[in-house]
Amino acid sequence: MSRAAEDGIARAALSRLFEPSDTVGMALVAVVGPIQALRIVRGETAVCSADRRLLREALDLPDGARDPLEEGLARWGPRVNDLAPARDLATLERLGGRLVTPETEDWPEALDDLQLARPLCLWVRGRAAIPEQARIAAIVGSRDSTAYGASVATELAAGLAPRGYSVVSGGAYGIDAQAHRAALASSQESDIPPTIALLACGVDRYYPAGNEELLRTIASRGLLVSEVPPGSSPTRYRFLQRNRLIAALSAVTVVVEARWRSGALNTAHHAAGLGRPVGAVPGSVHSVNSAGCHRLLRDGSAVCVTDAADVAELAGPLGSEPFGDRSTEGGEERRVQDGLSIPDLLLLDGLPLHASTTVDKLSVVAGLSARHVIGGLARLELAGLAVRTAGGWRRQKG
Amino acid sequence: MSRAAEDGIARAALSRLFEPSDTVGMALVAVVGPIQALRIVRGETAVCSADRRLLREALDLPDGARDPLEEGLARWGPRVNDLAPARDLATLERLGGRLVTPETEDWPEALDDLQLARPLCLWVRGRAAIPEQARIAAIVGSRDSTAYGASVATELAAGLAPRGYSVVSGGAYGIDAQAHRAALASSQESDIPPTIALLACGVDRYYPAGNEELLRTIASRGLLVSEVPPGSSPTRYRFLQRNRLIAALSAVTVVVEARWRSGALNTAHHAAGLGRPVGAVPGSVHSVNSAGCHRLLRDGSAVCVTDAADVAELAGPLGSEPFGDRSTEGGEERRVQDGLSIPDLLLLDGLPLHASTTVDKLSVVAGLSARHVIGGLARLELAGLAVRTAGGWRRQKG
Repeated sequence: MSRAAEDGIARAALSRLFEPSDTVGMALVAVVGPIQALRIVRGETAVCSADRRLLREALDLPDGARDPLEEGLARWGPRVNDLAPARDLATLERLGGRLVTPETEDWPEALDDLQLARPLCLWVRGRAAIPEQARIAAIVGSRDSTAYGASVATELAAGLAPRGYSVVSGGAYGIDAQAHRAALASSQESDIPPTIALLACGVDRYYPAGNEELLRTIASRGLLVSEVPPGSSPTRYRFLQRNRLIAALSAVTVVVEARWRSGALNTAHHAAGLGRPVGAVPGSVHSVNSAGCHRLLRDGSAVCVTDAADVAELAGPLGSEPFGDRSTEGGEERRVQDGLSIPDLLLLDGLPLHASTTVDKLSVVAGLSARHVIGGLARLELAGLAVRTAGGWRRQKG
Repeated sequence: MSRAAEDGIARAALSRLFEPSDTVGMALVAVVGPIQALRIVRGETAVCSADRRLLREALDLPDGARDPLEEGLARWGPRVNDLAPARDLATLERLGGRLVTPETEDWPEALDDLQLARPLCLWVRGRAAIPEQARIAAIVGSRDSTAYGASVATELAAGLAPRGYSVVSGGAYGIDAQAHRAALASSQESDIPPTIALLACGVDRYYPAGNEELLRTIASRGLLVSEVPPGSSPTRYRFLQRNRLIAALSAVTVVVEARWRSGALNTAHHAAGLGRPVGAVPGSVHSVNSAGCHRLLRDGSAVCVTDAADVAELAGPLGSEPFGDRSTEGGEERRVQDGLSIPDLLLLDGLPLHASTTVDKLSVVAGLSARHVIGGLARLELAGLAVRTAGGWRRQKG
C-alpha cells in the first residue's frame, strides 16, 4: 500500500474519532502525521516528550496547562473500538465516492486557510473534481425562507451557474435547497459541478428527509461533501462546523435571507474571518428573515448584492473570467516560491538543505510561532519543498 | 437702519438676482459684502482692481481667464429692474415669516460648510427657530413611492420626532410628504419644530398643488424654508440646488426609496460630500424604487438603516442626547477658539490686532488659498473675531 493510501486510511479512521475542529487532534496529526496519530490514539505507541512539547506549542498552551493529549485520549477512547475505516471507504466507493485528503491531488488548498481547524479529509460523493476556490460561490440562508428569499436565491444561483461558478450550500430546506435546484437547472456542459452540498452528516444519508430527491440528484450531477464519515448523524455542533467549510471553500459567501440570529450569519462570519468577501441580499425592513442580512450590511461585514453580476464582481477578478486557462498565463513558468505566503517563505528560507532541524529552532530562525511553523511545514511538505526526517525537518533537495 | 438690517435687505435683493450656488455672485459678496455687491450689480459703483483680483482668487481662476464679473453682470442685469426687496420682505412678514442671514443670530452655522455655495439668506416661514444641525434628520426619497416606502418613511419620521429630531424634507409627493406628515403627527411639546420643508420655490407658494394643505400645516406648526424669495417658481435647477441645503442642514440624511437615478441620490451625495452620514433603507431587490438605495449601500456611500434607532445612532452622539443642555457641559466656559476649524484658527492667528491686512497677505501668512481666506474671514466676522476695515481686515479687539 502506498504511503498516500495509508495516510488516507488513517485520516478516514481519525475523522470518525475526532469531531470537526478538534484542534488537539489536528495538532497531533500536524506534529506526528496521521498514521502515527492513529497509533497513538489506539494506544499502540506512546508520544515522546519532544512531540508532547511540540503539541503544546502548536496549541499555544502555557507551560503549566494540563496535558491536552490526556484529555484528548479520554475523549477519543470510547470510539476507538468502533473504527472500521476500510469498511467506511468501501461504503463510499460503492456510492461512487472518494476520499480527498491533503495528500491527494484534488485537495482544495483553500481549506488550508482554516489552519488547525482544517478538516482531516473530505468524504466526497460525485464524479466531478472540487473546483478551485475562485470558481465556487456559497449561497446560504434561512431554512424558513420567504417567497422573496426563495426567488432571489433562485435568481442568484441561476445567474452564477452560466458564469462558470459552482454553487455551494448546505443542502437544507429553504434558501439552500432553492440555490441547489436553480444551479442544477441552469447548469450547462462544463467540467465544473453545478452545485455542491456540504453536509453535516455522512454522504450516505439524506438529511433532511424531504430533500432526499434533491440530494440524490446532487450526488449524481454535482457533489455531496462531508468531513464526517458515512453513517454519521447531523448534530447541531456539526452543522455549525460545516459552515466553516462552506465559507473556506468559496470565493464569496452570499446570505440571501437570515434572521437576527441565524446559522447563515455564522457562515458569513467564518467567511469574513478568513478574509473572504461576504454579500448580503437586502429585503424589507419589516421581514424578520432579512434582519440578519441588514445586520451584516449595517456592521460592514457584508456588501449589498442584488443580482448574480454583483456576486460575481464580489468574487473577484479570477471569478469574472470563467473557464480561462491561467496555467500558462503570461508564458512564465511557475516558480518554486509561487503561491507561498510570506510566513511560509520565511520558513522555507529557514530550512537547512543538508541537515535536519526542529520546530523549536525553526521557530527562532524564521521568527514564527511554533503553531505557524507546524502548519507551514505541513504545507511545505505537501508542496514537495520540505521533508520529514528522523531528526525533524529539512528542505527537499533538487 | 442698522447695518444688519441693511445687510438683510441687500441679501434679500441679491437672492432674487443670483440663482442658488452662483459662485461668482457669492464670491463678490464675500469680497465686498452684500451692500456693496448690490451697488455694484446695480451699476451704482465700480469694482476696484484690488477687489477684482480678490474675486479671481476666491474663484481660483487662472490669470488669463475671462473676467467672471463681466459675465456675472450680464447674467444679473436683466433682473435688476425688478428688484423690490422691501416688498418681498413685507410679503414674508405678512406670512408670519422672517429673513435669516449670516448676520442674524439664528443663522444655521451648518450651512457655512457649503463655502461659496452657501445661500445668501433663508426665507423662513413659521414661528420656531431652525434647530441646530445635531437635531435635524433629513428623510428623502422618490415622489412615486411604493406602499413599502411610504410606510418606512412614516415609521422613521414617527420615531425621530419623539427622540427630539426635526425631520427635514423637500415637501414633495411620496416619501417627502409621508415623512412630513408622520413628523407632524408624532410631534410633542418642545421648542423644536416637528418638521421643516425645504422648498425650491418661494415660501408663499404651495408646490406641488396637491400638498397645499400639508404645506400650510407645516407653515403653522413647522417651518417652510427657501433660499429664493417669495413668488419664485420651482425650476429643475432650483430643485437640485435645494437638495444641498437639505444635506447641509442635517446631522444625517436618510434615503428611504430611490430609483437608480433619482434626486434623492443627489441629496445623499451632497451629504456625503459634506462629510455628513448617509443612511439608506434596504428593500426588495425586485423594486426599482429601492435600486438607488442599494446602489448607495453597495458603493459604500450609505449605511444600512432599518428603523429610527438606526438613524439616531447614525446622527451621532449629540443627536442621541435630545434636549440635553450642553451649553454649560463640563462646567467650562466656551473659549474663543472653540468650534473653529484648523484653517480658521490659522487665519485668526494671522490677523493683526492693531493694523489692517489684506486677503492676499493673509493668504501668505496663514498658508491658505484666497478662497479659504475669504470664507474664513466671513466666519470670523460672524463670530465677532474679525473686523472689516477700510484697509482690509483686522482682529476684533478685547
